[in-house]
Amino acid sequence: MYRTKTCGELRLANVGEVVTLAGWVQRSRKMGGMTFVDLRDRYGITQLVFNEERDAALCEQANRLGREFVIQVTGKVEERSSKNPKMDTGDVEILVEKLNVLNGALTPPFTIEDNTDGGDDLRMKYRYLDLRRTAVRKNLELRHKMAFEVRRYLSEQGFLEVETPVLVNSTPEGARDFVVPSRMNPGQFYALPQSPQTLKQLLMVSGFDRYFQIVKCFRDEDLRADRQPEFTQIDCEMSFVEQEDILEMFEGMSRHLFKVIKGIDLPKLPRMTWADAMKYYGSDKPDTRFGMLFVELMDVLKGYGFSVFDNAAYIGGICAKGAASYSRKQLDQLTEFVKKPQIGAKGLVYARVEADGTVKSSVDKFYSQEVLQKMKGAFAAEPGDLILILSGDDAMKTRKQLCELRLEMGSQLGLRDKSKYSCLWVIDFPMYEWSDEEQRLMAMHHPFTSPKPEDIPLLDTDPASVRANAYDMVINGVEVGGGSIRIHDAQLQQKIFEILGFTPEQAQKKFGFLMNAFKYGAPPHGGLAYGLDRFVSLFAELDSIRDCIAFPKNNQGRDVMLGAPGIIDDVQLDELQIKVDLKEK
Amino acid sequence: MYRTKTCGELRLANVGEVVTLAGWVQRSRKMGGMTFVDLRDRYGITQLVFNEERDAALCEQANRLGREFVIQVTGKVEERSSKNPKMDTGDVEILVEKLNVLNGALTPPFTIEDNTDGGDDLRMKYRYLDLRRTAVRKNLELRHKMAFEVRRYLSEQGFLEVETPVLVNSTPEGARDFVVPSRMNPGQFYALPQSPQTLKQLLMVSGFDRYFQIVKCFRDEDLRADRQPEFTQIDCEMSFVEQEDILEMFEGMSRHLFKVIKGIDLPKLPRMTWADAMKYYGSDKPDTRFGMLFVELMDVLKGYGFSVFDNAAYIGGICAKGAASYSRKQLDQLTEFVKKPQIGAKGLVYARVEADGTVKSSVDKFYSQEVLQKMKGAFAAEPGDLILILSGDDAMKTRKQLCELRLEMGSQLGLRDKSKYSCLWVIDFPMYEWSDEEQRLMAMHHPFTSPKPEDIPLLDTDPASVRANAYDMVINGVEVGGGSIRIHDAQLQQKIFEILGFTPEQAQKKFGFLMNAFKYGAPPHGGLAYGLDRFVSLFAELDSIRDCIAFPKNNQGRDVMLGAPGIIDDVQLDELQIKVDLKEK
Repeated sequence: MYRTKTCGELRLANVGEVVTLAGWVQRSRKMGGMTFVDLRDRYGITQLVFNEERDAALCEQANRLGREFVIQVTGKVEERSSKNPKMDTGDVEILVEKLNVLNGALTPPFTIEDNTDGGDDLRMKYRYLDLRRTAVRKNLELRHKMAFEVRRYLSEQGFLEVETPVLVNSTPEGARDFVVPSRMNPGQFYALPQSPQTLKQLLMVSGFDRYFQIVKCFRDEDLRADRQPEFTQIDCEMSFVEQEDILEMFEGMSRHLFKVIKGIDLPKLPRMTWADAMKYYGSDKPDTRFGMLFVELMDVLKGYGFSVFDNAAYIGGICAKGAASYSRKQLDQLTEFVKKPQIGAKGLVYARVEADGTVKSSVDKFYSQEVLQKMKGAFAAEPGDLILILSGDDAMKTRKQLCELRLEMGSQLGLRDKSKYSCLWVIDFPMYEWSDEEQRLMAMHHPFTSPKPEDIPLLDTDPASVRANAYDMVINGVEVGGGSIRIHDAQLQQKIFEILGFTPEQAQKKFGFLMNAFKYGAPPHGGLAYGLDRFVSLFAELDSIRDCIAFPKNNQGRDVMLGAPGIIDDVQLDELQIKVDLKEK
Repeated sequence: MYRTKTCGELRLANVGEVVTLAGWVQRSRKMGGMTFVDLRDRYGITQLVFNEERDAALCEQANRLGREFVIQVTGKVEERSSKNPKMDTGDVEILVEKLNVLNGALTPPFTIEDNTDGGDDLRMKYRYLDLRRTAVRKNLELRHKMAFEVRRYLSEQGFLEVETPVLVNSTPEGARDFVVPSRMNPGQFYALPQSPQTLKQLLMVSGFDRYFQIVKCFRDEDLRADRQPEFTQIDCEMSFVEQEDILEMFEGMSRHLFKVIKGIDLPKLPRMTWADAMKYYGSDKPDTRFGMLFVELMDVLKGYGFSVFDNAAYIGGICAKGAASYSRKQLDQLTEFVKKPQIGAKGLVYARVEADGTVKSSVDKFYSQEVLQKMKGAFAAEPGDLILILSGDDAMKTRKQLCELRLEMGSQLGLRDKSKYSCLWVIDFPMYEWSDEEQRLMAMHHPFTSPKPEDIPLLDTDPASVRANAYDMVINGVEVGGGSIRIHDAQLQQKIFEILGFTPEQAQKKFGFLMNAFKYGAPPHGGLAYGLDRFVSLFAELDSIRDCIAFPKNNQGRDVMLGAPGIIDDVQLDELQIKVDLKEK
């Protein structure tokens, strides 16, 4: 070892010891006849002292050290005269007797500090330097710890981690696959897994009983802000279980993580039906850190001659406590916000509850104070509150707009503290959603999801109303995990395929492989998958998943540090028996 | 839950309890008025009893159960009249009161028993049924346990598991890459990593200090018997270390695994130089479960008119204790063995030590008893021993032939017991090996491997003799792990590239990315990687790595169960802007 101690472990108790440290020069400063160097490694920072009077040559050598030089020093641990209580090692310093420069360093293109001066692009290009910053590294330390604790918990519950292959076949009914040309099987391609869904179901057919895997998955989608082409799932499946068993097990896992990582005792998770989530929050992943639940106003506000409301299929609003003080300008900005194309509302109606209890609204000319008081009552609004109302001719779309407004108001009012956690299960998802594009019902979760037994009769009469044994775990408005009980009955599966519009031949072609396996004795089973990246970024209180990924890709799917993807040799293309065939732009 | 107990946990203490079990019908038999069913799950087998007298209808239902039906039963635990001491649950049985068929099953194409009647191809096609066999499943249970213990040990030693990307760029100087066309970057390709070598070195530049990852790696090579296109490495790297630190750390890890998994106290690992391994075993991965070390006989047997030996560049042999009783036929078979094209020896000379101490050899007409006694002395051979000698005009090739003969004799004499373990470090590998194909020196490990400091002067005068700070861990003749101390000095790295025949421009083009990173302060570092598949198969006492992989591929790189690789849609090719371009055969 190049060191006897790390830069994070020396304390007053070590005073008098001769130690050897190695690390990077964080900063250095000359004060009188002394040179002070902060030496950094993963474990901390220790102050080094070079005394010109004691050893002028050594001090001169220290003065030539640049930022990020890699050095090794030996010296005696001494008590500091002016202690630094902000640092774990702040009580001591090393009076250096020997200095060995292990490697020089060019000046880094940005400062290696928690608040760096490097922009995103530069940081990504020099990610290996960005990762030196404690703020970034601790996210990856957290990720390591979370993954380990997931493994510990699930292992103790009898789950086996089984590695499933990365070179698989193209899966039907999903996002776009990444593919890999096979040299040994010319003209044929592997696909990278979007998830090990079918393989984990096969492991249940194999009797593995409890499976998990922390596993890379791949989706070739156009990347939104917080998506990566490769991402990591905590993928789980259990046999001989009902929905309740899975919710219990994974609520337990989450409780374990919150306890050991964050020191938080997670209360019993509330459960909300998908219908209620849509009704009260306009979202299947409600942010329940704050209230501001939707109140429907069709009964209250229809029929008074305000044509916008009179013709609406939905009128609903939220009550922002204490926001009656919002200025005209702030209200105009909110109106602009809901009218943004991404949100798409036509306008915003607002009403303030005055100190005397009267209501002043932007539509006063249509509504009497009596009606407005009735509305106030519907919200249980109090003096000082601000009521915001949206309407539209598509209830679901309007709810989603109101959801965005609610989240915006939550942010503006400081109700979305990243260090507070609100977790819940959203349950009873619909089996199907209508696709305008495909003009057919599509599986909301996936085609192997089991309907609720009591809803099975509805498959024939009203399939769109059938609820699934599907569930999501939502934390702070983020879907961190989700899954379902699977169908293990071949006849029921056949019926589901029919409703999805597959002929028996098509179903056989697309899913035959799994359906055949099921003929040899499939147990009842179900499972779920967590997005590890999202889970970690919630615990790390990050806005983006990128900073909890060591080497993330940008929105063009590029790793700018590695320069991937890149051009490959013609020889390689030739061996693979493929050709690049660029379209004209 | 569909059960209150598993099929593996009921004991005499549970007698009288009413329990519910669920699982697969292993077998059933009718005896008089009773039907016995063995119910199987991952945890064990429990005997079910159906009594015709008590409930004829239920018994009739049980009689209709086929093999591998999935059932749920409820009944009372009773003490068996004839106990089965071979089964953990052999003291008890369940007198079934309720039977629920959860799923039927077609008759499986092979028996679900440890000794199945299914051939390899059939087992692979129905791998999900093959995995039901306890013999296969327990290998995957072992794999889970080993991986978990690796993580536990390394975490406790301060290592962080960091996930590196799967979509990277093509690496120079390795095997063939699998590539992935990028839709968002037409004409460009990602490559799947052959190992995270450069990324883990970057993490050291980042100051991560101790990194590990259990990670899938990919090589598009023609597959030999025991290779898979995707395989799993335990990949590790440490900073501020010397070779000794790494050997200590990972010897500790191996000791931990042997102790907790196999209950074996691993002794301190012997270390053997590469030169000695080649000299005494003809292999850089010697099987040290048995002796039979090579004895060189150039001094002893040259110059007596036997032209084969007189013209040889190498004469060497092994002494097989107690094998003098080998018949003429057995000796002829050994001669055939060494003459096989894969081995390539021209012939085999043998000599028996008779009961009276005299030596009878196949080349008696050239050698006096005096010379033969001298030879006997060189082997310290005793009456009853068999001496086997090879010679050739290329010392290294002949040693490799003798290595094969030694391993064959070890097998024939029962000296290679899979349940016995002999582990060692092979150290001091040469930096370079000559490539006849490329007509240049090639890096034996990889071009970032550090030479031994004391050999650095030889880089200028005799590069082929330079030894590397490289090491392999060998168990029972299998290289389970290997690594090296890396170069962290840019000038030394430049020199190594020169010796490998790269111009500075070529080196920059191929390795510039890592070399640039090193300019910003690279610490001394080194590491190693274990092959998890091999490690598990050694612990599982398997001949092949395949049975410790859930879904392996065959020698054509195909997953016959999934039918991967396969044809993909033209739409998909079109989106990727590539074309299949099949050559004529």
